[in-house]
Amino acid sequence: MEVLRRTPPTLHALLHGVDERLARSNEGAETFSPFDVVGHLIDGEETDWMPRARIILSDESDKRFTPYDRFRHRERNSNRTLASLLEEFVNLRAENLKELSSWKLTDTQLDLKGIHPTFGDVTLRQLLASWVVHDLGHIAQIARVMAKQYRDDVGPWTVFLPVLSDHESPRS
Amino acid sequence: MEVLRRTPPTLHALLHGVDERLARSNEGAETFSPFDVVGHLIDGEETDWMPRARIILSDESDKRFTPYDRFRHRERNSNRTLASLLEEFVNLRAENLKELSSWKLTDTQLDLKGIHPTFGDVTLRQLLASWVVHDLGHIAQIARVMAKQYRDDVGPWTVFLPVLSDHESPRS
Repeated sequence: MEVLRRTPPTLHALLHGVDERLARSNEGAETFSPFDVVGHLIDGEETDWMPRARIILSDESDKRFTPYDRFRHRERNSNRTLASLLEEFVNLRAENLKELSSWKLTDTQLDLKGIHPTFGDVTLRQLLASWVVHDLGHIAQIARVMAKQYRDDVGPWTVFLPVLSDHESPRS
Repeated sequence: MEVLRRTPPTLHALLHGVDERLARSNEGAETFSPFDVVGHLIDGEETDWMPRARIILSDESDKRFTPYDRFRHRERNSNRTLASLLEEFVNLRAENLKELSSWKLTDTQLDLKGIHPTFGDVTLRQLLASWVVHDLGHIAQIARVMAKQYRDDVGPWTVFLPVLSDHESPRS
């Protein structure tokens, strides 16, 4: 939670009010723009991390997670502004952290398992750690995508700016 | 400036008050921790970007830049706290942006040149764009370094979390 609570203010500082061109630029076909990433994180709040944690902690005998749709946000947010998505993310994350905190999870609960569509057995502890890493990965992605929009402007400095290199492969 | 002014609040949101273990962890020998990155950005404010811009704009005939010491911060900040470095960076960046803004640079001025110790001729325009990309690269680095501290906790999710992979080579 110490890290998860940082993501909304970090995204706000990095993105709120940025030029629309910068917010909608990506790293090529099938890659995410900063706008897409915020939509993807909203999907995570609504359909991924906490819903899966609730399945693990539930009394149901079927602990299979619902498969996650990585492109749900595309249609969902087609008429939205970045500002409204940022606000929505802030609110969803705050609600989720309030609920997570209210659980006062014990070590025993953190070792409870659910069934991931790809991996099979996973623990609640692994799910929560992955949520943290997922956030940080997408913060890094947003910064990288923004950086690449200045690729043609830096001249010879390119060689000292590895964030511009393509070995940092596009991904969502 | 639209991007440069975002770096202090972004770093504050991401790092202020984080666990000391997280702030001081890195990606292995000779790589930067988040603490080191903030120190490196302070060095940039004091010895790199604006000093070089001033050289380009000066009346001096010698436009050679002073070589930049990438490890100045190591000794300089050995007794500092992350909180005090963050505060110092906020202040230095604010002063530098105030000065940069006061110049009201024209296109002609942006095309003026200085002499980089490695590259030779570079324009003020390239210098300023590189400053922006440098900031964003280090924001991405901080998020990546933080993420890697959870590498052993995510279990099978590793394969879906490319920020944890080593093809994202450590660098400063």
